[in-house]
Amino acid sequence: MQQPNSLKPQRNLTMLMDFYELTMGNGYLAGGIGDKTAVFDMFFRKIPENGGFCIFAGLEQLAQYLENLRFTDEDIEFLRSKKIFDDRFLSYLKNFTFECDVWAFREGTPMFPGEPIVIVRGPVVQAQMVETMILLTINHQSLIATKANRIVRAAQGRDVIEFGSRRAQSYDAAIYGARAAYIGGCAATACTILERDHGVPVVGTMAHSWVQMFGSEYEAFARYAKLYPDNCTLLVDTYNTSRSGVPNAIRVFDEVLAPMGKRPKAIRIDSGDIAYLSKKARGMLDGAGYPDVKIIASNSLDEYIIRDLLIQGAAVDAFGVGEKMITSKAEPVMGGVYKLAAVQGKGGGYIPKIKISETIEKITNPGFKSAYRFFSRESGKAIADYITVYGEEINPENPVTLFDPNATWKKQTVQNFDMRRLLTPVFVKGRRVYEPTPLTQVQKFCADEIAGLWDEVKRFEHPHRYYVDLSQKLWDIKQGMLTGGAGQD
Amino acid sequence: MQQPNSLKPQRNLTMLMDFYELTMGNGYLAGGIGDKTAVFDMFFRKIPENGGFCIFAGLEQLAQYLENLRFTDEDIEFLRSKKIFDDRFLSYLKNFTFECDVWAFREGTPMFPGEPIVIVRGPVVQAQMVETMILLTINHQSLIATKANRIVRAAQGRDVIEFGSRRAQSYDAAIYGARAAYIGGCAATACTILERDHGVPVVGTMAHSWVQMFGSEYEAFARYAKLYPDNCTLLVDTYNTSRSGVPNAIRVFDEVLAPMGKRPKAIRIDSGDIAYLSKKARGMLDGAGYPDVKIIASNSLDEYIIRDLLIQGAAVDAFGVGEKMITSKAEPVMGGVYKLAAVQGKGGGYIPKIKISETIEKITNPGFKSAYRFFSRESGKAIADYITVYGEEINPENPVTLFDPNATWKKQTVQNFDMRRLLTPVFVKGRRVYEPTPLTQVQKFCADEIAGLWDEVKRFEHPHRYYVDLSQKLWDIKQGMLTGGAGQD
Repeated sequence: MQQPNSLKPQRNLTMLMDFYELTMGNGYLAGGIGDKTAVFDMFFRKIPENGGFCIFAGLEQLAQYLENLRFTDEDIEFLRSKKIFDDRFLSYLKNFTFECDVWAFREGTPMFPGEPIVIVRGPVVQAQMVETMILLTINHQSLIATKANRIVRAAQGRDVIEFGSRRAQSYDAAIYGARAAYIGGCAATACTILERDHGVPVVGTMAHSWVQMFGSEYEAFARYAKLYPDNCTLLVDTYNTSRSGVPNAIRVFDEVLAPMGKRPKAIRIDSGDIAYLSKKARGMLDGAGYPDVKIIASNSLDEYIIRDLLIQGAAVDAFGVGEKMITSKAEPVMGGVYKLAAVQGKGGGYIPKIKISETIEKITNPGFKSAYRFFSRESGKAIADYITVYGEEINPENPVTLFDPNATWKKQTVQNFDMRRLLTPVFVKGRRVYEPTPLTQVQKFCADEIAGLWDEVKRFEHPHRYYVDLSQKLWDIKQGMLTGGAGQD
Repeated sequence: MQQPNSLKPQRNLTMLMDFYELTMGNGYLAGGIGDKTAVFDMFFRKIPENGGFCIFAGLEQLAQYLENLRFTDEDIEFLRSKKIFDDRFLSYLKNFTFECDVWAFREGTPMFPGEPIVIVRGPVVQAQMVETMILLTINHQSLIATKANRIVRAAQGRDVIEFGSRRAQSYDAAIYGARAAYIGGCAATACTILERDHGVPVVGTMAHSWVQMFGSEYEAFARYAKLYPDNCTLLVDTYNTSRSGVPNAIRVFDEVLAPMGKRPKAIRIDSGDIAYLSKKARGMLDGAGYPDVKIIASNSLDEYIIRDLLIQGAAVDAFGVGEKMITSKAEPVMGGVYKLAAVQGKGGGYIPKIKISETIEKITNPGFKSAYRFFSRESGKAIADYITVYGEEINPENPVTLFDPNATWKKQTVQNFDMRRLLTPVFVKGRRVYEPTPLTQVQKFCADEIAGLWDEVKRFEHPHRYYVDLSQKLWDIKQGMLTGGAGQD
């Protein structure tokens, strides 16, 4: 009898919800406004590490969550035991059916501060309740996809392999982090479950312990080569890379693989100075007739170290990247927020809502909105994103004047552009309409979209700021609310 | 018909394993050494944020993983499809039964660099394979428990509430991170599932969207107070804390709660300058006859900000702490490693193994070991940890000379001490012997253990370094291996 290995045999994540979503939900129903249609936006304010763009990721897991959102008897009994929820609310949860409309960016899309990346419209009790999981899912995967893409770009076409499971912030971070890293451009992962469940190619050969288990490094290498002659990658730094590891590897290539008619694949260096050791190893391999054998490096790497290694001529063909990618160590938080943007009035129209703050960037963009990306027909490059009131018409045949929403004298008029809607329907009245996309396609889409950004936006430090502008109509609404003491009554 | 909400209805995490554990496992079996008994240690080298100690956490989840470790038919078929594993290995996995001995620190124990915190002894094929999940589980929870404890200590007895789910690095990070934060001393969490599944008290009241959903802030507060008169906590910063939020809260306390005979609980401030606003709000509340109403603050807090707020006399009674705790933002990686320490020889004795490195701290402590903590009988405080060869006798009635393993001239002789074994049996020949401990007990144990450390070790910056010393016997073995060119053959 086989039992699957699991920390919870059945995983019910409905209660992975901030408790205030439930106290508010109960209150909305009790106050007779539970069915009032509300519009919430997810957006973020700051790009991690002051980069030029982020990558939107995690939509598939979010869609899976929403389409399965149910409250089990166990959930309801737990909530009842808190003795603060009305029977009406508990019975609403028992019969819960998701009824909202959801729009979101496609996975792999570059995204920028201040634009709506997920919009939820529906009964306020429902649209409120999904906040925690929307933020948790999208913040995490977008953070890692963004970081991975930086590292992949630093590697300039060389493979980047995700090596971080052991340092991830728990199990899902290893799994969905590696998924996001693949969207960001990683070639493979060391974590087995990713290939089985998500189609991300898995790779792996040996740890130092393999080398230590045998009488000598030579013997350890020879055993490995005999066993895996078609995928012979040897870890050469257990004792001393250039004095012992590489010479032993070459001996094994000559004495074990050559007689079998097999070519070795690679060596891996996991410590020491990668620039120095890789060049030295390259020379030794070339000199021994193995110019085709690759060198993989994997020691506390990130985009900055990889960039510097390549500037210094490191002879590395592929990079294994661990903790600094899987946790986005330099900035491990993507600060996406979820804010009320509008409420449907009695006449059916939307009453915009705004959250005011003394910090200008913290002021929200009110209203039920759409988002577009403009592409220059000349260069094919993305010029700006344009946020409008939902339903507002834009004719790309006419020139559009863009202006900085905070510094309105900064203007430019764009014409001869193509435009694309950024928000795709994911749920229509609670029914999922967004098809799962194979991850290789998402990865390719992401790479293509990034190719459509100007290089100036892609610098790691001090990138050019990409324009995210508001339509005149939306700007007027916002300005009116700011000057009119909005929201106070 | 209710279906639980889940991203995978059944969660099988066995394949959350670095692929090289499997290529090595296959190789150990093929090489006829799969049954050879090996001893692996988990240890870490550096305390995050250069703190004085870490807290060991995650053992319960690790034990659950190990006791349920099975390979499903799905796992085996996936591995077979890779076409590199022997039938013998696959059939071994199919009939897998965990046979190892495992020792570990008790959850909540302060721990220090260089000491074994988990030891696994068993057939090398098994002891190797559990590496990924041991590191992933213990690294994550220990990281968060350590960070949470810093924050809790900064709060000087005031409650710290875990608020980070939406910024956690995926679902398990929210759940097990909040669990670890509770071990580290947090009073409660905002994440509902923690109370149901782990017994951590959950709290939650309202978001800004609640205030925005009603015609005015006063109305939103009044509705809430009527609905939750026994737990009335109002969020006062949606529009303007001191001009609108606190005055409206006081009006509602007077006009809604007082006629019901109820006392309000608290107000919460989530933006602006907490020192200034909390003092101002305190004055207003006191002046209105509400000196018993608590003030909760929650805006990008960590131990440094909390310390400074309290130095400045902030009138805060409880802190809600989000992203900086749930991700350990300042240093989001606990770098625990898992290294081969010994292999059983033909005679039954253990042959120590060492991993040499040019970086002294990266050299491992060889051999099958034990770990003790010495407590002064005078002060009751912990004096040092002492790592020995397994089975070595120590008599606490005799003086013991401690010396720095890297600077051996630094010596001290300790006597009149009590000692305690740090490593507890968790599995004996694959059978779990460690009983799950209620989390409140773990939290209390952790607090008591930390009370047993000198204050000098608890400073946030430049703490005194706690001694972790090797017995003479262990030091001699290590020194012999280092000078004798250990491990090369």
